[in-house]
Amino acid sequence: MTDRPRFDLLLLHARIATLDPERDAGYGLIEDGALGCIDGRIAWIGRSDDVSPQTREQAARVVDAEQHLLTPGLIDCHTHLVFGGDRADEFEMRLEGADYAAIARAGGGILSSVRATRAASEDDLLAQALPRARDLLADGVTTLEIKSGYGLDLQTERRMLRVARRIGDALGITVRTSFLGLHALPPECADDAEGYVAEVCDRMLPTLAGEGLIDAVDAFCETIGFTPAQVRRLFDQARTLGLPVKLHAEQLSDQGGAALTASFGGLSADHLEYLSEDGVRAMAEAGTVAVLLPGAFYALRETKLPPIESLRAHGVPMAVGSDLNPGTAPMRSLRLAGNMACTLFRLTPLEALRGMTVHAARALGLGDRGLLAVGKRADLAMWNARHPAELSYWIGGRLNHRSYVAGRPV
Amino acid sequence: MTDRPRFDLLLLHARIATLDPERDAGYGLIEDGALGCIDGRIAWIGRSDDVSPQTREQAARVVDAEQHLLTPGLIDCHTHLVFGGDRADEFEMRLEGADYAAIARAGGGILSSVRATRAASEDDLLAQALPRARDLLADGVTTLEIKSGYGLDLQTERRMLRVARRIGDALGITVRTSFLGLHALPPECADDAEGYVAEVCDRMLPTLAGEGLIDAVDAFCETIGFTPAQVRRLFDQARTLGLPVKLHAEQLSDQGGAALTASFGGLSADHLEYLSEDGVRAMAEAGTVAVLLPGAFYALRETKLPPIESLRAHGVPMAVGSDLNPGTAPMRSLRLAGNMACTLFRLTPLEALRGMTVHAARALGLGDRGLLAVGKRADLAMWNARHPAELSYWIGGRLNHRSYVAGRPV
Ligand SMILES: [Zn+2]
Ligand SMILES: [Zn+2]
Repeated sequence: MTDRPRFDLLLLHARIATLDPERDAGYGLIEDGALGCIDGRIAWIGRSDDVSPQTREQAARVVDAEQHLLTPGLIDCHTHLVFGGDRADEFEMRLEGADYAAIARAGGGILSSVRATRAASEDDLLAQALPRARDLLADGVTTLEIKSGYGLDLQTERRMLRVARRIGDALGITVRTSFLGLHALPPECADDAEGYVAEVCDRMLPTLAGEGLIDAVDAFCETIGFTPAQVRRLFDQARTLGLPVKLHAEQLSDQGGAALTASFGGLSADHLEYLSEDGVRAMAEAGTVAVLLPGAFYALRETKLPPIESLRAHGVPMAVGSDLNPGTAPMRSLRLAGNMACTLFRLTPLEALRGMTVHAARALGLGDRGLLAVGKRADLAMWNARHPAELSYWIGGRLNHRSYVAGRPV
Repeated sequence: MTDRPRFDLLLLHARIATLDPERDAGYGLIEDGALGCIDGRIAWIGRSDDVSPQTREQAARVVDAEQHLLTPGLIDCHTHLVFGGDRADEFEMRLEGADYAAIARAGGGILSSVRATRAASEDDLLAQALPRARDLLADGVTTLEIKSGYGLDLQTERRMLRVARRIGDALGITVRTSFLGLHALPPECADDAEGYVAEVCDRMLPTLAGEGLIDAVDAFCETIGFTPAQVRRLFDQARTLGLPVKLHAEQLSDQGGAALTASFGGLSADHLEYLSEDGVRAMAEAGTVAVLLPGAFYALRETKLPPIESLRAHGVPMAVGSDLNPGTAPMRSLRLAGNMACTLFRLTPLEALRGMTVHAARALGLGDRGLLAVGKRADLAMWNARHPAELSYWIGGRLNHRSYVAGRPV
């Protein structure tokens, strides 16, 4: 350092995994590293040795990291964490031997979450969702995506998106919202899919976009969800409104959803167990991120793996999300999803960490975070660990030592 | 209540899952329940309505549980949580494509843990193990088993067992120790298995038992571990010393280890993926507990399931352990093992909860805990949950609200 900056926050003696590709092709490690923040951004990063006594004296706040590992704050780019009720009863019924018909008769499945969400007030939904969001934060997350999709009518979808915004305000973190009106067919439209799609595309989406509640548009493209033609109609409307798109694609069968998303320049295609080689190529060309969700794969005991080798070969960036939802992944830890991505999908710990930081940022269209370099947001996670591979190696446990959002401790 | 007891602690308005078979065949739920403790034991349990104003006034401490779920404190009956170093580097090497030979050349595998454990002082080992033990406690555990087995020489095995005792003292919980000298062959005895077995049976075991460091005797019976004949020799010595036995049995192949353990009236046989019908029958007759360890099954991506149906049919009590260890299950949450027992082994949530409480107590030879009834220890876990099935439904997250050990908050 040649000048004498006045840092708002100066972290000293951290083992920094910058993930900055300009440093090296790996973790971009700085041993005994230091990092200075000004106005919520990283103003300087280097070795503790290079911090002059004057710089240290002038810093508003100095923290000795005592050789703890420091990484970018984790980013969970795929959650459904706002919902009413839970589905523990259904989990139990299934393990006690009930078949799907019996569970449906008992009112189970996604529509039970829709009922409970519709019945809950905005304050109720917030009170139920906050502990789940806090669990993610306690595990090092500093940016979060939250989808709607358990309302399936205008007022409840609005309530979910408002709760998502309020979670960001309450916790002082960035929350990006995705409108997932095409998540399931609501019971009152069971025989009129086209009518519901029209309602979502022509009324709900423009109305809620007009209210500033939507950051991106998502859908569930599947034989048991919505058809590619219906998704295309939604994406056309999103394009008209200037909103980016993403898709639940190729989870249970190959619908060509990833290629469709890529053709709209989509941010991400998510799940992807049944993704074809053509789909991989389309994603690579469009720069669409592959969001892997091993929590649902685990909970559903799936056996078909997403085409990791092909995604690697074509250079498709891979992100990892918790998929936190009441049905297929009641998973309240992104780091655990990282472990599952390694254990079940054979990602390397470096790929898993990129998937929870820089690639997850890209899946949300956020270019200002996910790696530690000058000019990026000072969203930081400090860990009770020495080596970044520990973040996906340990299964459970409290590894997060503390976190900073825009340079402020959270 | 007809008399007017003076409770040291009176909990009111809890949703109590007693797991008491005298109440019913399920969770033994008491809605709006109350529980009074005297001298660390449960002195009364019933409905909050039945607590008189006088009883409430006389209680030294009254806690309103606000309808939180209350269960017996969880019991982790199988851990290796004292060890030096970690094996995150090996986890990473393997995912980067290194084969076992390469990892062995790099000094990996169990012997790397032996090296790091031998190199660590008692205080070092304690400092490394305590955060792991605290993670288990933070998830509702109030009784813990800890094995030796990364020393493989007298002084290091002693150090591990002493650290296990110190963890119990430091955290104010019960720690039961298991001597696992027959965990692996130490490098200095690589060509002399019989010599090492003699050293363990004739010197280490009696010496450490004489020092009061051993509550039970364990071994790893496997083609890559020790033979049934070697285990029998160990168990004979344990019997002579009056110590109960247990065994790592049938994890990778059927060695008849469970039946051998049963023939010694063993506390438990653990893992059991390759357990035969004869083994099940022998365990049922002897009352030996089947300890299921789904964490290792998950981390090793095993596909052969333990014979759950047969264990059920023969009435063998099933427990669930974390198996917390640096190699095959770096798992710092017992509740997560419970989720895996449901998800991967298809236990019901009730079986999983019994497996982490009353059956785990039995696997440790502890008859005074694991269910909530008059006379039992007041080891209690209070949860941010309403229904006991939530404990295995949620994957990760901070569900434990607070815990009590012998009636005192921890
Ligand atoms: Zn999803
Ligand atoms: Zn073990």
